Amino acid sequence: MNKKFFDDHCPVARTLNAIGDGWSVLILRNLFLNDSQRFQDFLESTPGLVPSTLSGRLKVLESKQIIQRQFYSEHPPRSAYRLTEKGRSLGPIMLALKEWGEKYDTST
Amino acid sequence: MNKKFFDDHCPVARTLNAIGDGWSVLILRNLFLNDSQRFQDFLESTPGLVPSTLSGRLKVLESKQIIQRQFYSEHPPRSAYRLTEKGRSLGPIMLALKEWGEKYDTST
Repeated sequence: MNKKFFDDHCPVARTLNAIGDGWSVLILRNLFLNDSQRFQDFLESTPGLVPSTLSGRLKVLESKQIIQRQFYSEHPPRSAYRLTEKGRSLGPIMLALKEWGEKYDTST
Repeated sequence: MNKKFFDDHCPVARTLNAIGDGWSVLILRNLFLNDSQRFQDFLESTPGLVPSTLSGRLKVLESKQIIQRQFYSEHPPRSAYRLTEKGRSLGPIMLALKEWGEKYDTST
């Protein structure tokens, strides 16, 4: 997902190229629910997500300036991720996804 | 995508299990822009989409009662797809995806 995938003449497709992967959406969900998240936090709150997938998705989201990584300790080096302003602007999408999921039980 | 994928205790994840595949979102986009679409219409308006992928996504969306297939000719058999009421309720998600894509050029 770090290269152009869907034809980007359409704004919906452009958004999908940024966050159209399900894992990316769940990563962003965690950052809307929690101000900052460490690598391990994402793994613990997202069943099925493995470190290699998480690492790749975080890099893509960071490269698109949707999230930012901040180091809060130098010795030992520790970092956490936060939404950028651009990332926070995804709020209406996340809310719409949540509301539809609450309305319809699509688990079957 | 026709089996449960993301942990469904979360409403966002439940929505992703229904429409969390990028191709599915683009299929739905076509049905929001056009009242009904034939199989060939989807292929023509969605660069990169191949028949086998389209066929699979249509089956999943139909099984989740998000779209419905209607036959408008018996001889020869011809059919087209439409959104159901449940499918139309995805409108706020589609709109939010479109608006974000218009605001941010995420094609790079």
